[in-house]
Amino acid sequence: MSDSPPPQSTGSSVVKELPPVFTRHEAVVGAALRAELDGRTLPIYDSLRYYMGWADVDGTLTHSPEGKRLRPTLCLLACEAVGGDPADALPAAVAIELVHNFSLIHDDIEDGDRTRHHRPTLWVVWGEPTALVAGNNLLAISDIATQRLRDAGVSTAIKAGHILTERYLSMMEGQYLDIAYEGRTDVTVDEYLMMIERKTGALIEGAVELGALVGAGGSSEVVEGLRAVGDDIGRIFQIRDDVLGIWGGPALGKPIGADITCKKNSLPVVHVLEHARGAQRRELQRIYARDEISAIDVERVLDVMDGLGTQRWCQGQAETRWNRARKRLASLQLSSDATREFLELGEYLLVREV
Amino acid sequence: MSDSPPPQSTGSSVVKELPPVFTRHEAVVGAALRAELDGRTLPIYDSLRYYMGWADVDGTLTHSPEGKRLRPTLCLLACEAVGGDPADALPAAVAIELVHNFSLIHDDIEDGDRTRHHRPTLWVVWGEPTALVAGNNLLAISDIATQRLRDAGVSTAIKAGHILTERYLSMMEGQYLDIAYEGRTDVTVDEYLMMIERKTGALIEGAVELGALVGAGGSSEVVEGLRAVGDDIGRIFQIRDDVLGIWGGPALGKPIGADITCKKNSLPVVHVLEHARGAQRRELQRIYARDEISAIDVERVLDVMDGLGTQRWCQGQAETRWNRARKRLASLQLSSDATREFLELGEYLLVREV
Repeated sequence: MSDSPPPQSTGSSVVKELPPVFTRHEAVVGAALRAELDGRTLPIYDSLRYYMGWADVDGTLTHSPEGKRLRPTLCLLACEAVGGDPADALPAAVAIELVHNFSLIHDDIEDGDRTRHHRPTLWVVWGEPTALVAGNNLLAISDIATQRLRDAGVSTAIKAGHILTERYLSMMEGQYLDIAYEGRTDVTVDEYLMMIERKTGALIEGAVELGALVGAGGSSEVVEGLRAVGDDIGRIFQIRDDVLGIWGGPALGKPIGADITCKKNSLPVVHVLEHARGAQRRELQRIYARDEISAIDVERVLDVMDGLGTQRWCQGQAETRWNRARKRLASLQLSSDATREFLELGEYLLVREV
Repeated sequence: MSDSPPPQSTGSSVVKELPPVFTRHEAVVGAALRAELDGRTLPIYDSLRYYMGWADVDGTLTHSPEGKRLRPTLCLLACEAVGGDPADALPAAVAIELVHNFSLIHDDIEDGDRTRHHRPTLWVVWGEPTALVAGNNLLAISDIATQRLRDAGVSTAIKAGHILTERYLSMMEGQYLDIAYEGRTDVTVDEYLMMIERKTGALIEGAVELGALVGAGGSSEVVEGLRAVGDDIGRIFQIRDDVLGIWGGPALGKPIGADITCKKNSLPVVHVLEHARGAQRRELQRIYARDEISAIDVERVLDVMDGLGTQRWCQGQAETRWNRARKRLASLQLSSDATREFLELGEYLLVREV
């Protein structure tokens, strides 16, 4: 299977739907996440239940869209892929999802983002100081979940703790670089990829590595191989996110070119700013020097991107990584079920539209 | 010694100076803290070296006031007090000091405080988004320090990790309550004490408990006894801080009544608002309902505090806890050096003027 041609960016409608591995783990992940906040009665935990999609602003339990839970799904799948019981990796899956949500709560503050999953962000409802503390609370709760990994054996638990701390620090360094890049129009593609490797990649890679580590009961070649697959999956996830940020449009409830309007440094933007030449380059620099980017400016940037084949190039970057990941998956000799589910998941990430 | 009368709030000038235990540990704590940031080259670590007092804004190494390093000092003293080698507890001492500084960086953002130790706060220099991330980075580095505790034995290291997480979560809950109390004039003394127990007390108590735990190589009655002493010391520290926030004045570079002007809910303020009656109560409510509290208003609040004996009452609350802590210290049969140093430290905290 590793020699079949790479999936096309125009993948079939079947592939564009969330593959079964997500729904297979959805209930157990959802229950385990909720359990971490059960019995916590200070009002600040209501703000977290709201953010996680389990409650309204007033604390009434509800069912809002919870997101894909990509990281816990990857973690449990990696655990199964090496023959482990996914229940053993559940504390790690939960911890990673909570760290991810902690980072989103703080990102929303840092970026001034007012909406996520079609709802007001935490700081918009509760104010910045409370949102900042709520994020920090969630991080502590993720530590508590991590400590529950002890059942997987002390040495694995200690190693898992180290991996989580490293990944968390990488994520913060990536977040710092993202902030430091703001307002710059000379960020290179290499600088950008190095930033997302940390900001998004570290935690996704960590999800796969931790699941495999717990499932295998310690380090091994297959754990290292899956970690590398996780690294590729993280890159693919972010590249597709960046493509959707420009061309995703209606399915995301955003106009075409949304990330241009808000001057976000994403892969297509970094690519076009690095590769445009001559008059086009000067025009892009003028547009990005303006306080606000108009709809006409967005059209111009999109035209230059079309001319440079920016979307195709971005998608190609993701496909290159996916081909590498597929070859590696084939070499790891996982069960056929696990291989198939990893392939479905990766192919979905490559072409997803939401 | 535990039967001698409690020190007076007008303690001798000798007691008001930093006792030798602080200077005894200063160099080793300073070097260990610096080592955690050594070799970290991203500019965000310059902002942390600045905040810790080791560098200027431009990264030039410098010697700014570093604060007392109360928490690491307590941690190492507690380790020695149970017969341990303070070097073993150094990772815990460092971790706690870093968590403390992480919380200060975020507190400065939450409270909009522009100055700390006579220097601009991190967010003032680098902006809020970077400051928020810098705090999170420091927290990760504290986790890395904690993980170095493994040398003290796996089971002690695991227990220490749990204690740190619990204390960190308590601290965040306390910080949340502090924010939630803002603008309220009906916070009771009990509510306030419960808040500072978490916001300030949890980490100071944790410093003593962790030092004792590592020094003793596991839980024991004396570890539990020292933890309780740490709980009292945390309370005393915060009460004295609150007294200085009103009456500290020149030594802190602040006018008398500073915490009244900024409407901070501190123990004296909560006390006067809870205990004033009749016309005085109505006047205080009117004053605290104003957008800005004038110098004349501050004088009035100070008058009411004088009438109610608020300063004496606050100091008495601290002395009651100190008497309890001293009795407990005497009962723990520590070495005479350790007992003396704990007594010097506690008596200093009771009357310190900076």
